[in-house]
Order: sequence, then C-alpha cells, then structure tokens
Amino acid sequence: MTTPAPITSLQNSHVKRLVRLRTRREREQEGVILIEGARELHRAAASGVNLDTLYTCPALFSPEAQALAPELTHPHLTVLELSRAAFEKVSGRENPDGLLGLAPTPRAALPEPGPDAVTVVLHGLEKPGNVGAILRTADAAGADAVIVLGRGADPYGPNVIRASQGSVFTLPVAVMDEQAAQDWLAARAFTTVACTPDAPRTYWDAPLTGRVALLLGTEHEGLPAHWRDTDHSVSIPMNAARGADSLNVATAAALVLFECARQRRAQAQAGA
Amino acid sequence: MTTPAPITSLQNSHVKRLVRLRTRREREQEGVILIEGARELHRAAASGVNLDTLYTCPALFSPEAQALAPELTHPHLTVLELSRAAFEKVSGRENPDGLLGLAPTPRAALPEPGPDAVTVVLHGLEKPGNVGAILRTADAAGADAVIVLGRGADPYGPNVIRASQGSVFTLPVAVMDEQAAQDWLAARAFTTVACTPDAPRTYWDAPLTGRVALLLGTEHEGLPAHWRDTDHSVSIPMNAARGADSLNVATAAALVLFECARQRRAQAQAGA
Repeated sequence: MTTPAPITSLQNSHVKRLVRLRTRREREQEGVILIEGARELHRAAASGVNLDTLYTCPALFSPEAQALAPELTHPHLTVLELSRAAFEKVSGRENPDGLLGLAPTPRAALPEPGPDAVTVVLHGLEKPGNVGAILRTADAAGADAVIVLGRGADPYGPNVIRASQGSVFTLPVAVMDEQAAQDWLAARAFTTVACTPDAPRTYWDAPLTGRVALLLGTEHEGLPAHWRDTDHSVSIPMNAARGADSLNVATAAALVLFECARQRRAQAQAGA
Repeated sequence: MTTPAPITSLQNSHVKRLVRLRTRREREQEGVILIEGARELHRAAASGVNLDTLYTCPALFSPEAQALAPELTHPHLTVLELSRAAFEKVSGRENPDGLLGLAPTPRAALPEPGPDAVTVVLHGLEKPGNVGAILRTADAAGADAVIVLGRGADPYGPNVIRASQGSVFTLPVAVMDEQAAQDWLAARAFTTVACTPDAPRTYWDAPLTGRVALLLGTEHEGLPAHWRDTDHSVSIPMNAARGADSLNVATAAALVLFECARQRRAQAQAGA
C-alpha cells in the first residue's frame, strides 16, 4: 500500500469541495455530511455512520485524535492527509484537532416507540447551538427520538453536530414536515405537550409519563397555533419580579426532559 | 445644546480606547465595563448601573435601540455618535444595534440571605457563554446571588453580559476568593451542595430547601477536593446506555436550580 503525498494546495479539488460543503445546499445536493473532530467521529462511528473519507492532519492531532485515527480505518475508507494550511482552510473550528470525515447523510427511521417513549419535536429552531444542545441533553435524559420540523437548522450541519457532541448520531433524529409528524405522533397515541411561556400550568404539574411528545418552538415566536392544540400546555415558572422573562430554549427543553425522567422514576418507585 | 459631529476616524481616541477595553486587563485597569445592545443596556439602567458614556450609531439602530436611546439619557451622560464604520470597529457583535455604553465596574455587595436563599458558586468556569447562561437561568429561577471564584471568566466581560441577557446586572454577582466565599457561606449556615457527576445521590433526592449554596465546577475538572467536602453531593442521572456521559455545565446548573424551586414550592404547598 502506498501512501499518497499530503495535499498542500489550497486550490486542490478536495480542499475546494470541502469548503463548498460547508453550505447546507451543497451538502444536500451531494447527500453527504461533514463530521469534524475526534469526539464526534468516534460517536458517529460507534453509531454505525458509514464514513467513506477521512481527511487527516497529523501535525494538528490532539491526543484523542491521534488515538482514534487508526480505529476509524476500515477497508473501504479513503484516508487523505492534508497539510496544516490545507486542513485549516477546510476546518470549521478555531482549534482543529486534525480529523475531518465525510459520510452519506444518515436517514434515520424513527424507532417504534415503547410505552414510555419521550420524543422531542422542534419547530423552527434556527440556531445550530440550540438544536445541538437540545440533542445532547435529550440523549443524556434518555429521550427516544427528536423530530425536526421544516427548515430550521440542519440537524446534520457542522455546528449542530459539534454542539450536540455527536449525540445527533446516537439519538434517532428525523427531519419531517408538519403533517407527517402530526400523523406519526397521532397514530401512536402520543400525549402531546406544548412548552409555551404563557401556559397557566407548570411543567411540574402536568402528567409527563407514558408516551410523551414535547413540542418546542423558538424563543421569540413560540409554537404556531396549530401546534398549541395539544393535550397539555406547560410553562416554566420564572421569577418575574426582577424582570427575568425568558429562558433559553435549550434550557427549557432540558428542564422538561428531566422532569419527564423524574416523574417516570417516581412512578416506577410507587409501583415497586 | 450643540451636537458634536459624529466620530468617523478609526484612529479617533474614543475608538481606540473602546477597542482596548475589549480586553479584561484594560477594563480592570480603568475600572469600567462595556455594555453593548439595547436589551443589556435597558436591564443595566433598570438595575441602577451608572452609565457615564453612551456611543450611538443611529444608522445601525434596531427598533428596540431607537426606542431606548432617549430613555437612557440623563444629565450626566455623555452621548457620542459614531459613524457606521467606527461603530462596527468597536462593536463586539456581528450585527450591532447601534448602542454601546461605558459604566464604572459594579461592586455588588451580596445581600444578607433570607431563610430560603439560593446562592450559586462557580469555580473556574472559563467559557463566557456558560457563565452568562448560568446567570440568565439563575435569575429566572429566582436565585439570590452568584459568587464567582477566582479567575474564571470575567462576569462583566462583554460575552458574559450578552449571554446573560443583562441578568448580570439584576442578580447580585460577587467575585471572591475561595476562603472569603467559604467564610461567607459558613457564617450564614448555608447548606452546601456540590454538583458532581460521580455522586451516588441524585439531585431529586437531596433536600434542597432552606439556605442552599450550589457549587459548580468545570465540565472537565469538576470541583477541587476541598470544595467537595460539602453537606451534600448530587449528580444528574444520565442515560449511559447510549454513551451520553456529560451535560453542559449550564444545563446542569439549570436542572438543580429549578429543582430547588420545585422543592420549595412543594414544601410551601405541604405547609399551606
């Protein structure tokens, strides 16, 4: 096996393609995603994402990247080395760790839900940091799936992948249109719970056991009217006295997701 | 009253000073803070922060900034207009809204705690986004104060102010050394609660009523040993099956802060 020379030219077609793929439209046209960083690549590989090309820059390797690179290799993987300048050109990070992979866009099928499944439904969230943070938290809280409606942030965009710390690969994530999502949830008899700041009932007081779909909208616009017509609407009680009037949407998601977990545990303890 | 001509030169001494003040050392030497953005300036002014200079760029005004600018004016306020290029030079934002203020660094004295006071103690948190998010959430959750130990992120740095959405001004925030903080808490008989991933007890199971101090360390290093010797240690139960092994520190803070609120409400309801 011969090792090709490292790619050094910033005009090289691989370099130019990787730069192009930083835009969502280009990724969607090619049907590929970019996965940068050892932690994210590790979780993607462990979740069965089928990496086809790995770009490396050993001069930039973090200890974690150094250890992981050989583990990622498989017989059908193309490994190409980039010079430091070329890697920095294609990286989306301030401090790249020398690993960047390409894989076909995952097509997650939503798993058939168990009796206690928690599904998160995101409407119109545009900030990749928020979507990624919700994926990370949903994974930690033991949610079963996340449904992303319409054209908010691309859940497989580099900044979502990064903010999710790779949870986008371990947790089933589906991009669906609104009608398909409503049909999917209704056919499985999910209890739908809208998180809205103006609901009189707190999230502590709503029953969040059984199959639950948590609906979250943007901080500014909330959920559209037809997504508020749910089984329950819940709010998070805030200290209005000092003028605090909002929580970050990912923080709100974390609170309601872990309240689901708390109520499930309490129910299990009561039944035991 | 004559209105001075707008400052247009990027070499103007105001412009150069504002750029310098983006570094913590320069702010500390001068004893001033920068407050950018209508929302943050509004909350600062409402909290009694003594703005002494306001830089404006009407061409960049958001509707919120346009409405707020006249309200911020007081007899001792110097108002200076910058050209668009000059304002963009001094702004720390991608999309500035045309308002940037200077104020003396607030010297918050911690209020004497009530019987149900919740105080958050941050150890070594370096990311401004996390510190700001915790301040915003602590404010919403009704915490009484935040103590920042040692040399983590500057709680009055522009990125913390922004991420806190101005909560750094409405919530008492004190920067203290470790000994002073321990003495302050001990003298007031706070129950100290360390949030650590390896604690066997969940945050749902620890009593979080009365005077409670929540101690949070960095995601990677946690709390140093002498800060773990607390009344309680609590963890957040995570779904380890899929490999999720951590929560963002600001998410963890939100969960424990709102669990304090939930337990207090349950206690009040039981007593009523």
